[in-house]
This record gives sequence, C-alpha cells and structure tokens, in this order.
Amino acid sequence: MSQGYSVAVAGATGAVGREMLRVLEQRSFPVSSLRALASERSAGTRLPFRGEEVAVEALREGSFEGVDLALFSAGGTVSRRVAPAAARAGAVVVDNSSAFRMQPGVPLVIPEINPDALAGHEGIVANPNCSTILFLMAVHPIHRVARIGRAVVASYQAVSGSGQKGIEALRSEMRDLLEGREPRAGLYPYPIAGNVLPFVDRILEGGHTPEELKLHSETTKILGDPRVKVTATCVRVPVERAHSEAIHLELERKITADEARALLGAAPGVRVVDDPGRNLFPTPRQAAGGDDVLVGRIREDLAFPTGLALFAAMDQLRKGAALNAVQIAEELIRRSLL
Amino acid sequence: MSQGYSVAVAGATGAVGREMLRVLEQRSFPVSSLRALASERSAGTRLPFRGEEVAVEALREGSFEGVDLALFSAGGTVSRRVAPAAARAGAVVVDNSSAFRMQPGVPLVIPEINPDALAGHEGIVANPNCSTILFLMAVHPIHRVARIGRAVVASYQAVSGSGQKGIEALRSEMRDLLEGREPRAGLYPYPIAGNVLPFVDRILEGGHTPEELKLHSETTKILGDPRVKVTATCVRVPVERAHSEAIHLELERKITADEARALLGAAPGVRVVDDPGRNLFPTPRQAAGGDDVLVGRIREDLAFPTGLALFAAMDQLRKGAALNAVQIAEELIRRSLL
Repeated sequence: MSQGYSVAVAGATGAVGREMLRVLEQRSFPVSSLRALASERSAGTRLPFRGEEVAVEALREGSFEGVDLALFSAGGTVSRRVAPAAARAGAVVVDNSSAFRMQPGVPLVIPEINPDALAGHEGIVANPNCSTILFLMAVHPIHRVARIGRAVVASYQAVSGSGQKGIEALRSEMRDLLEGREPRAGLYPYPIAGNVLPFVDRILEGGHTPEELKLHSETTKILGDPRVKVTATCVRVPVERAHSEAIHLELERKITADEARALLGAAPGVRVVDDPGRNLFPTPRQAAGGDDVLVGRIREDLAFPTGLALFAAMDQLRKGAALNAVQIAEELIRRSLL
Repeated sequence: MSQGYSVAVAGATGAVGREMLRVLEQRSFPVSSLRALASERSAGTRLPFRGEEVAVEALREGSFEGVDLALFSAGGTVSRRVAPAAARAGAVVVDNSSAFRMQPGVPLVIPEINPDALAGHEGIVANPNCSTILFLMAVHPIHRVARIGRAVVASYQAVSGSGQKGIEALRSEMRDLLEGREPRAGLYPYPIAGNVLPFVDRILEGGHTPEELKLHSETTKILGDPRVKVTATCVRVPVERAHSEAIHLELERKITADEARALLGAAPGVRVVDDPGRNLFPTPRQAAGGDDVLVGRIREDLAFPTGLALFAAMDQLRKGAALNAVQIAEELIRRSLL
C-alpha cells in the first residue's frame, strides 16, 4: 500500500462523481490506480484526472476486484445493488446515497464531528445527506458546549442537488425568462428560474419530504443523541451549486453571539463570515467551489430566551458530498481502517 | 360623496404606486378624482388609469387640499414629512411605510384580521410590512383556535421588495450569468442572480434586520397579544414579485393538518394549495399577479408535539402592499370612517 490505494469511483460522470475526481486530485489522495465507473451508456467517456484522461468503464458487480476504496455516487438503487458486492470483494465503500445511512453497523460520518464511529465499519461507510452536513457543521461546535434541544431549519437548496441536469434546467429556464417566455418546466413540476419550490425529492404521506426527515434522523445518529429534535422545511432555489440554511436553535443554556462566533471560529472546516458593517455574511455564491462551511448572521434570539439564530452556506457538491466522502477515506487511512 | 372619493396616490410611479392604481381600477373603487403624486423628477410622467392617462404631479405638503383618501407609498422619510400634513388637510392617510406602524393611535390593519382597530384612527392608518401580512394571513385562522405560542419564520423574498430597480437588477444580472460573466452586483452588496442574500433592508446592532424585528412587533400589535413570539430569518431570493415563507408553529394545543387545512380553506383571502400527489403546493410564480395568499405543505411536526409547519406565498406588491391598502380604504368606507 505504500504507493497508494486502488480507488474506484462509481457514478464518475455525474456532478458529484466528477467532483470526487477533482477532490482526489486536489488533496493529493494516494491513488495508485483509478477506475471510473458509470452506467453502460456513459462507458467510454473520458474524464480528466491528474493531467491525463481516464476512460469510463461500465459499472458491474465484478468491477471491484482488487479495489481498496470505492466511492459511490450513483444513486440509492445502484448502491443497494452493487455496494455490498464491492464490500465483499474487499473494497471499503464510502457511499453517498441514502441507501445505508440509517442501517445499524454502517457508520454515518462527518470527519470533523464523529470520526470515532468509523471504528466499527463492516465494509460500508455512509456519507450523510448534504443538508445534514451543512446543518451539523454549522451547529456542532455550539452543541458541544450548550446542547441543542430543538432546531428549526429552512433550506435554500441549489439545483446541483439534482445533478448536472439541475444546472442545465435552470440555465435553460433563465434564458426563457429573459426572452419573455414562460419558462418550460423541465426537471421539476414547475419552473425553478424566478421561482422557489417548497420541496426537495418528493412529498411523502404525512406531508414531509425525505430531505426534511433525514435532517432529524441523520442528526440523531451522528450525534448519538436522540434528545436533539430537528424540524425542517426544504426548499429548492434558483442557485447553481451551494446550499444555504436559516437555522434557529433552542439551546439548553444561553450563549451569546460572541461566544458562538468564537466557538465556530475555532472549528475546523468552518469559516465565520459575519460582519454586517463590512457587508460580510454568507451567500451560496461565496461558498461555491470552496471547502469551508460559511456561517454568519449569528444573533441571539429576541423571542426565545436561550435561542440563537444563524445562516450557513456550503458547496453542496464538495463538503456536501465529494469532499466529505474523500475526507472519510483519509480518516480511514489515518486510523488504519482501509 | 355619492359619486365617490377624491383619491391621491403618493409615490404613484413606484412599483407599489403603479399597483395601487391598478387595484383601484380593478376593484372599481369609487374614485371621483385621482391625483397621482411623485417626486419632482417624475412630474409629468403619464400613468394609465381607467383607460385614460393621469399626469403625475410633484408631491408637496399642499397637495392634499380636498383629498378624501391619500394612499402613501413613497418611503418612510416622505411619509414622516408629508403624511401628517395630508391628515391635517382632512385626508385619511393609508401609509405603506414603516413610519407610523408602531405609533399609538395609528391602527395597523389587515382587514381580514383586525378591521375593528380602524375605529380609533386619527387620520393615519398603517399598512403592515409585506412579510407580516403574509405570515398573519397564513397563520391567523389557526391562531384563532389553537393560539400560537411561538413561530419561526424563514422568508424567501422577491426583489420587487426593493421596487422596480430590484426587478431590473435581477434581470441584468441574470443576463450576465447566462453570458458567462460574473454578475455585476448593482443594487445589493452581492449579486442576487444565482444567489440568495440573507438580509433584507440592513443589519442592525445585535445582528437582526428591521424586517425580522417587524415580524414580531407588528404581529403582536395586530393580534393585540404580546404573548405570541415570532422569530425570523429574512432572505432575498432571485424571484421577481412574490414573497414566500416557511413557517413553523408551536401551538398551545395540537391540531391536525386536516383541521388546519379546513380552517385555512374557510378563511377569506387564503387559498389552500396542498395536494402533493397532484404536485400542488404554493410557489411564488403561482402567487404573482393574484390576490390570494397561497398556503400548502401543511403538516404536523414530528419533532415538536404541538407543532405545525406550512409554506405560504403571496404577491408582495398586491396583498403585501397595494391591495391591502385599498382593502383598508374599502373597510373605512364600510364603517363610515372615511
């Protein structure tokens, strides 16, 4: 292993998969050989990696012979079908889908928060949902000292959450708008350009979306604390690639905005952007392309005695998906678990 | 008065002022004569009204001789300077700015909610802020039967809240984006196209925006109930003219989503749009140009025992400003207070 690891990326041609290749390269991840895997239809596509090109191969159950690390981002159905075979073949799978997140024996990990959970892995590690990563990166440093009782989250989610086709749909609809035409809704039931859509994924019986339920269930699993209650409204907005969240916390004890700023300022992976006098606050355009979770608008709540409010933004394709997955792999190496 | 009222619109050339003329015409408000007033710079502009054109006159303190009803939407500074003179001249002022809203003796009115407050007016009636109108129209029918203890609001506010120049800035920045240029932020400190900006108006000492504080203070004045606590994060989104809000309520007693739907369905000015199976939920594009406040995504909160969540959208220039002002005037006539 001294020269590195044999790495496979499943779903390599998707928006997250392409970002995984970039992150592996940018972080000089010790890759001895790279296998880019995608659907039959994408086989033969060439993807840039370390100044060369990698030819995409069709993803099969047998694609993982000799693979040490398999990064999956090909959707839940593919993960459920293929990831167990990859693990049986000896690869450690870091899966970006929701397929295994809540399964016992599958660590659900944000490396800055619960790296110790990796110890018990049985071949599959799950990457949390992007909305959960953004939320927890922005509140965990506060939770550690003042414990969150309840949290209310409203999201402002980018179209890249729907993959490359989300970005293309937004651009095409914006063109319609500017040319005075009613945008032709392609990807979503209504246009997303000049609009916001109050759902992500789909709406279940009972009226919640899976995205909203994940914010609660994944948070309790990652924190190992079922007392933390999270409620959310998830909304798609016409932004290309970074998600934002308005977060209102009810804490067990009052902390001041200055204390919160100090805690967040010392947290790895978090950057405090919070100086209204200089027009500094987080926006998704600032977060796009970067690794940090930006946090600002930190303020004590006037309506709730132990309340604290803040606004956070994060590149959804990087820390919300590809970067967190690669950081999990780095942590596995550090702990000799890969 | 049998042939109608002499009406003045102050700020007639702005986005809200133009909408006021449209609403007066569409609702066949009994106008015997119309005076369109604006800044010196706009004097001479011709505005359409009832198939004819009205020439804009420069707004002066003396502009209100013989005027029965003065609809103001020219900003707080102008209102503070001129509205008291208009009232002294005998006009009843309905003011859309924040200048007088919290002043004792000035009714702050949403006609569907607290029309009785008009009785005590002393010449000036205030129109609530658009965010407050949207919030209260969407929750008041529930509050009446189950009392709101606490509410958390996250807004998705259209650029028309910044007037016509907001709409123009968004279009011009969208053009930049589509042509591959970094959008030139004109109106706001950062681009609004392809972005969201987590503030409306400005950020005060303490970290709150006036928009957020108004949601609490105006709500308690309109409901006449200081026990209701509202906390908010107000966010500008790249939408042209309708505001939306994600609203999470903690009620004094549990009500089901079906009960909430029935209460909202019976409320004047509210339209329930809530059938996920048929892709029915509110969006700002659906609300734009219409009079109703659209409410959907109604669901019982899984994290909070007496919680209820919903999503609402409303044309900010109509029910959020011009329509509510004209409805106030209609209610004044009905009560012989004009």
